[in-house]
Amino acid sequence: MDISPLQRVRYDYLPKLPAILREPMGSILPVKGENTNPASDAEAIKALFPNTCGLPTVSFEKGKDAAISQIRNVGVILSGGQAPGGHNVISGLFDALKAANSENRLYGFKGGPSGILENSYKEITADFLKAYRNTGGFDIIGSGRTKLESEEQFKVCEAVCKTHDITALVIIGGDDSNTNAAVLAEYFAKRKNGIQVIGCPKTIDGDLKNEAIEISFGFDTATKTYSELIGNIERDANSAKKYWHFIKLMGRSASHIALECALETQPNVCLISEEVEAKKQSLASIVEDIANTVALRAQDGNNFGVILIPEGLVEFIPEVKVLIQEINDLLAKEAEAYALCSDDNQMFAFVVERLSSESKSVFNLLPEGIKKQLLMDRDPHGNVQVSRIETDKLLAEMVATLLKKMKKEGTYNGKFSSMTHFFGYEGRCAFPTNFDSDYCYSLGYNAFLLIAGGLTGYLSSVKNLSAPALEWKAGGIPITAMMNMEQRHGEMKPVIKKALVELEGKPFKYFEAHRAQWARETCFVFPGAVQYFGPTEVCDRTTVTLELEQSGK
Amino acid sequence: MDISPLQRVRYDYLPKLPAILREPMGSILPVKGENTNPASDAEAIKALFPNTCGLPTVSFEKGKDAAISQIRNVGVILSGGQAPGGHNVISGLFDALKAANSENRLYGFKGGPSGILENSYKEITADFLKAYRNTGGFDIIGSGRTKLESEEQFKVCEAVCKTHDITALVIIGGDDSNTNAAVLAEYFAKRKNGIQVIGCPKTIDGDLKNEAIEISFGFDTATKTYSELIGNIERDANSAKKYWHFIKLMGRSASHIALECALETQPNVCLISEEVEAKKQSLASIVEDIANTVALRAQDGNNFGVILIPEGLVEFIPEVKVLIQEINDLLAKEAEAYALCSDDNQMFAFVVERLSSESKSVFNLLPEGIKKQLLMDRDPHGNVQVSRIETDKLLAEMVATLLKKMKKEGTYNGKFSSMTHFFGYEGRCAFPTNFDSDYCYSLGYNAFLLIAGGLTGYLSSVKNLSAPALEWKAGGIPITAMMNMEQRHGEMKPVIKKALVELEGKPFKYFEAHRAQWARETCFVFPGAVQYFGPTEVCDRTTVTLELEQSGK
Repeated sequence: MDISPLQRVRYDYLPKLPAILREPMGSILPVKGENTNPASDAEAIKALFPNTCGLPTVSFEKGKDAAISQIRNVGVILSGGQAPGGHNVISGLFDALKAANSENRLYGFKGGPSGILENSYKEITADFLKAYRNTGGFDIIGSGRTKLESEEQFKVCEAVCKTHDITALVIIGGDDSNTNAAVLAEYFAKRKNGIQVIGCPKTIDGDLKNEAIEISFGFDTATKTYSELIGNIERDANSAKKYWHFIKLMGRSASHIALECALETQPNVCLISEEVEAKKQSLASIVEDIANTVALRAQDGNNFGVILIPEGLVEFIPEVKVLIQEINDLLAKEAEAYALCSDDNQMFAFVVERLSSESKSVFNLLPEGIKKQLLMDRDPHGNVQVSRIETDKLLAEMVATLLKKMKKEGTYNGKFSSMTHFFGYEGRCAFPTNFDSDYCYSLGYNAFLLIAGGLTGYLSSVKNLSAPALEWKAGGIPITAMMNMEQRHGEMKPVIKKALVELEGKPFKYFEAHRAQWARETCFVFPGAVQYFGPTEVCDRTTVTLELEQSGK
Repeated sequence: MDISPLQRVRYDYLPKLPAILREPMGSILPVKGENTNPASDAEAIKALFPNTCGLPTVSFEKGKDAAISQIRNVGVILSGGQAPGGHNVISGLFDALKAANSENRLYGFKGGPSGILENSYKEITADFLKAYRNTGGFDIIGSGRTKLESEEQFKVCEAVCKTHDITALVIIGGDDSNTNAAVLAEYFAKRKNGIQVIGCPKTIDGDLKNEAIEISFGFDTATKTYSELIGNIERDANSAKKYWHFIKLMGRSASHIALECALETQPNVCLISEEVEAKKQSLASIVEDIANTVALRAQDGNNFGVILIPEGLVEFIPEVKVLIQEINDLLAKEAEAYALCSDDNQMFAFVVERLSSESKSVFNLLPEGIKKQLLMDRDPHGNVQVSRIETDKLLAEMVATLLKKMKKEGTYNGKFSSMTHFFGYEGRCAFPTNFDSDYCYSLGYNAFLLIAGGLTGYLSSVKNLSAPALEWKAGGIPITAMMNMEQRHGEMKPVIKKALVELEGKPFKYFEAHRAQWARETCFVFPGAVQYFGPTEVCDRTTVTLELEQSGK
C-alpha cells in the first residue's frame, strides 16, 4: 500500500477561501486601515523597529492590481513543532503565486530555519505538491527549532535570498518564530534590500491569539483529535465503571488545549494552569480537590471518571515552581558533590538538606518516581525537563494516597483505581480538519497577496472564523502591533505577547459555570473521529472556544 | 452540550443487512447444513455436551415461517471488555424481535453476567434505544467480568428467566463468555426448560476467529482507531526526524491488533508475539534486532522511526515467561521473609538469590523500573500483572543501552531519543465504523432469527465479510464446533480454541515479505480518522487482515 484511501481522496479536497480571495488574481487590492501600536511598551518597541512599527492594518477589496503579474520568487520556512495544516499554508501560497504568474517560483527551505542558513532547499512544483495537499505533518520540507535571531544569521539569509533572487520570505511559526520574523523584517527594511517577510500563525497550543489572530492554525485539528480520544475513554469509563483516567494534554505555556477539550467532552475534572497560578494553589490543595470529587462521585456509586491535566501544570503551581528553581540552582552549584551520591536515597537526602523549608515539604510530598524525574531528567543546561514530568502519574498517586487516608478517617468509601495517558504527538500531524484545511490555505493564499501588496513585517490574518469560510475577512497585521517587552535570559526583549487562558473570558466562564455539575454527574460528550465528508455541522464547525469567544460579538 | 454533532447524526445511520435479512420477517427460514464436530477432542466434548454437540450449521433462505410472530421475551447480556458495536448488536436484536411481534420484549441485564444473577435489568424500548444506535461503549446496560460457570449460577439464571418469561438469552462476549454460553445452553437443554442460548462474537483482540466467524466485532473499529494514531505519530516522526516511538498496543493473548495496525501503517518494526514464541527468541535478541534496525536507518541519516509492540509480548518470550513463573512461585512461598525487605535493593537481592541461574541473568538485564513492576504490581492472587508491565519503556531503555555500547564499538553512529505510548482504552469505545455498525446490527438481527428457528448453543455467524454487506451470508454455528479440550487451573476443560496469529497465514506472510523494506526505508501510511460519510472505499472497507485472508478464496 502506498497511501491510504483517505489520503487519496483528501488530495482532491478544494479548500474554501473567503469571498474576496475568490476574486481573480489581479482584481484584489490591499486597503490600509488604521495605524497600529504595540500591545504595550510602545516607545521601546518603536525604537527597536523604526521601519516596521506603527504600520497600518491591511484588508483586501476588489480593484485592479496591474502589478500582480510581476515575477517573484518566494521562500517558505516551517518553524518549530508540527501543526496540522502547514502543508495547506504552502499550497495556498503556491496556488496564489502561480495564479499571479506561472513563472513565479516557490523555494521551500528544508528542516526549518536552518535550511535557509545552509541554503538547503527544494523548489515546490505543482506535481510535488499534489501529494501533500490537505495532509498533516511538516514532512513536505521538514521543520526545525533553530532560531533566526542574530545579525550574522540575517546576513546569511540575505545572501541566500539574493542567490535565488528571492524577494519575499514566508515564515510559518509560533510566537517566537514570528517575533524573529519581525526582527528579520526590520533588519531587511533597514538594509533596503527589497526582501519582504510575512509570518503565518501556527501552533496547536493556541497561545498565539489576539484581536487580529482569532486562532492559530492546528489548534482546531489537534484539540478535535484529543477530544476524540478523551470521548472514547469517557465512554469506556462509563461502561466499565471502574477506572479514573488521568489524561495529560500537550500545552506547556497555556491551557487552551485542556480547556477546549473540556468544553468538547465535559470531563469530571479539568485543571487550568492559569487558574492554579492566579489562585496560588498548592499541590496538596489540587490533590485534595480531586480527591473530594472522587469521594463525591463515590457517594453516588460512581467509582470512575476522567480528569484532564495540562502538560505545564507543575510550573504554574507557585510552590512547585520555586522547588524546581531551587533544585536547578543547587544542582548547578554543587554538581561535583552531588555526583558522589551513589543511590536514590543519598540523592534525595542531598537535595532535601539544601532546600528551603517550604520546598522541602513539597519535595517530601512527591511520589518517589517523580522525585527521581526532578533529579535525573535534566536538559543540557542542567534544568528539570518539565515536559518529561509525568504529572498524570504524580496526581494519580497522590490522590490514591489521600483517598486511603480519607477512607481511614471515614470521609471516603469507594474504590479507586487509575489509568494514566498522555496525548500530544497523536494530534500534531493529523490530517487537518476542513476548518484547518480551509483556514491554512486561506492564510497562505493571503500571505501572497500581502507580498504582492509590498508589505513586510506582517502576519497573515484571516478573521471572522466562526462564520462560514465565504464570510471570512482576509488581511494583514503588523507583527509589532502584537508585541510587548519581556524579560528573556536576563534581558528585556520585544516579543509577541503570549495569549494565556483568560479567567474572565467567555470560554473559561462557561467552563466555570458548569464544572460542578460535570464533576458530580456524568455529563460526558463523545465527539468521535474528525469527519471530512458529512453534514456541515459535523465537518466544518470550529472550536467551542472560538464559538464562545465570538458569541454575541 | 448534551451530545456531539457526530452523535446526533450517527443515531440516524441505517445499518446495512445481508440480502436475506432484508426479506420481510416471516419470509426467512433456517436451513440446516452439515452436522458439525468439535475442532478437536470430539469424544470428550460430545460426552460433556450430549444435547448440543454435533448439531448442524444453519443458514437462511426465503420461505414462509408462520410461527415467527409467536410472542417471545429475550434477555441480553454484555460480557467482558468493551468493543465498538455492542450497542448495534442490541439494536439489531431489538428491531428483529419487534418486527416479528411488537409485543415481544427485550430485557437487558445490567453490569454484565452478574445482572442476571442479581435480576438487575432494564427493559429495552425503542425510545431508550434511540440514543445508543451506532454508538460505541457498553454503557447502554453496562458490562462485567463475572463468569457464568457454576451449576448454582445456572439455576439462578433459570429462575430469573422464568420470572420474566424469558425463553432465550443472547450473550455478547469473547471466547470465554461464549464457552460459558455453550455450557449454559447444554444445562438448559438437559433441563428441557425451553430456554435457548445464543452467543455473539465480541472482542477487539480478534482472537475469536475461525471458519464460521471471520472476525470478532470491534476489531475493525479498534484497529482503525489505533492506526489513525499510529499514522499521526509516523507523520510526526517523519516531520521532526528526531524520535523513535515505541507504541504498545492492547492484545494480550494474540497479536492480531499489532499485525493489523502494521498492515495499515507500515511501521519500521512490529513485533508479533506468536513469532517470538515460535522462534524461542530471547529478550536480548529482540533488543538486538531493534537496535540493528535503528543503526541501519541511522546509516541513511534517519534517526527516527516507529515500533509496534503487542501488550502480551513478555509472556511469549520463553525465558521471561519462566522468570515470571519463578517470581510468582517464590514470592508466594516466601511471602513472609520477603515482606521484611525494606528497600528496592533488598527486594532485588532477595529475589535474585532464589532464581534459577537462567532467570537470574534475564532479571539482571532488566531496567530498574521494570524489575520493580515485576515485584510490586501484583494481582490479588499474587501474580505479576503482565498488562501493567511497561513493555514499551522496557524495550526503549534496553535498546538505548545497547546502542550506547554499539556506539563505543563503532557499529552505530546516530542519535537515539525515544517516546513511548500505550493505546488500548482509546479504541474500545469508539463510535463503531460503518463495517462494525453493519456487522453488529446483522449479528443481532441474525441472533433473533436463530432464536425463532428454535436453536440453542449457537453463535450468530455472518460471513463473506470482505464483500459488500448485501452479499454477506447469515447463519449460525454450534459453539461446540469451535471447541477443544485445554488445561485450565489444572483441569481439562472444553473451551473455544483461541485464534492466534498464524505464521503461515496470508496476513503474516504479507507482513514478513515487506518488513525488511519497511524497516530500512520510510514506507509509512497514514490512515487518518475513521470516516462515516465519504466514498465507500474510505468508509466501508474492512481490515487488511480480512482482505488478505479472503483474497483468492
